[in-house]
Amino acid sequence: MKLITAIIQPDRLDHVREALIQADITRITVSRVTGHGRQEDIEYYRGQKIAPNLLPKVRLDIAVNDQFVNVTVDTIVAAARHESGEIGDGKIFITPLEECVRIRTNERGGSAI
Amino acid sequence: MKLITAIIQPDRLDHVREALIQADITRITVSRVTGHGRQEDIEYYRGQKIAPNLLPKVRLDIAVNDQFVNVTVDTIVAAARHESGEIGDGKIFITPLEECVRIRTNERGGSAI
Amino acid sequence: MKLITAIIQPDRLDHVREALIQADITRITVSRVTGHGRQEDIEYYRGQKIAPNLLPKVRLDIAVNDQFVNVTVDTIVAAARHESGEIGDGKIFITPLEECVRIRTNERGGSAI
Ligand SMILES: Nc1ncnc2c1ncn2[C@@H]1O[C@H](COP(=O)(O)OP(=O)(O)OP(=O)(O)O)[C@@H](O)[C@H]1O
Ligand SMILES: Nc1ncnc2c1ncn2[C@@H]1O[C@H](COP(=O)(O)OP(=O)(O)OP(=O)(O)O)[C@@H](O)[C@H]1O
Ligand SMILES: Nc1ncnc2c1ncn2[C@@H]1O[C@H](COP(=O)(O)OP(=O)(O)OP(=O)(O)O)[C@@H](O)[C@H]1O
Ligand SMILES: [Mg+2]
Ligand SMILES: [Mg+2]
Ligand SMILES: [Mg+2]
Repeated sequence: MKLITAIIQPDRLDHVREALIQADITRITVSRVTGHGRQEDIEYYRGQKIAPNLLPKVRLDIAVNDQFVNVTVDTIVAAARHESGEIGDGKIFITPLEECVRIRTNERGGSAI
Repeated sequence: MKLITAIIQPDRLDHVREALIQADITRITVSRVTGHGRQEDIEYYRGQKIAPNLLPKVRLDIAVNDQFVNVTVDTIVAAARHESGEIGDGKIFITPLEECVRIRTNERGGSAI
Repeated sequence: MKLITAIIQPDRLDHVREALIQADITRITVSRVTGHGRQEDIEYYRGQKIAPNLLPKVRLDIAVNDQFVNVTVDTIVAAARHESGEIGDGKIFITPLEECVRIRTNERGGSAI
């Protein structure tokens, strides 16, 4: 099992959600965050680098069984990208998921995901 | 060390927090998120599946030493569940935690958790 | 690759962000969360322990290649700590990161981070 965390542009949320549903990825957690990627133009003030502004982003967390990792990642990449790709389009992180529990039934593992 | 992440119904937050304190799990991070689980009734619009509404949820993150994983999970399951279990009661994810640092003291590992 | 998650006091966010930029850690995701650490004075009501109030905190998530873990953690510890350290200064968690994808280019791994 893996946990897929994606940081995307807020204007792509609906499109990404629809694409995931079409791909049968039907469970998701969404958070409003802020962030920035690599600073395009480093600004200086009195010789010190200045931290760039934090921009609104959307964080998606999706737990999946291993065989769904590729379709989930590919679906997010395709749906989150603006045309042929723009700076700031986002990032996806994949981390190991050791266990998963459905609270209603106390089920564990892949069938609880 | 493990990181336990639970997504629960907002109306269960106080009850879960109290149950965790009774069980001596005294450190927690809480976020307001939205999400949905498996779509109960798949809706279609012009032949396309529609993404379900995002519902308000509460995310709990709790880092614990290995011997506290079971009590933490069992306490959350028991306190987050509505009566004998309702659809949408929530999900728990367990991920590996490699290191932990208490900022005040720069302590590391299990005693810093 | 590692995912570094820090929970800090909100009044330290700007200082931590500037220190990270000086240290050439230029990508970050920031969330507003609430939480509490170990309960300093356990309060009782009718013989039951009471859950402490949830206090506003800031969560930082920073994905880095392995050789940047130490500088990232040390920079956060130094910049987040109040003087010689105060209760509630915060916590850092390090988790394994298996894969990383830049959405714009579909790049993978360490160069996508
Ligand atoms: N290494 C990282 N650690 C934590 N968050 C990150 C990281 N890289 C990106 N993010 C998050 O993802 C958002 C989008 O990042 P972005 O797409 O700008 O990445 P980038 O590496 O700068 O790529 P690009 O050159 O395409 O802009 C950021 O605002 C931030 O919230
Ligand atoms: N696989 C998953 N990935 C990411 N978030 C999830 C996942 N499963 C559940 N969640 C989060 O947990 C919340 C509660 O999920 P829910 O309890 O409805 O799960 P479920 O698998 O549909 O189980 P049930 O049949 O009991 O409803 C969702 O709204 C979502 O935020
Ligand atoms: N084990 C943990 N699990 C989840 N979140 C935690 C944990 N420990 C700390 N946090 C988060 O970090 C914030 C700051 O924690 P804090 O610095 O008070 O930790 P502490 O262990 O009580 O150390 P101190 O004795 O220095 O206060 C908390 O409000 C909480 O959001
Ligand atoms: Mg960028
Ligand atoms: Mg459900
Ligand atoms: Mg504390």
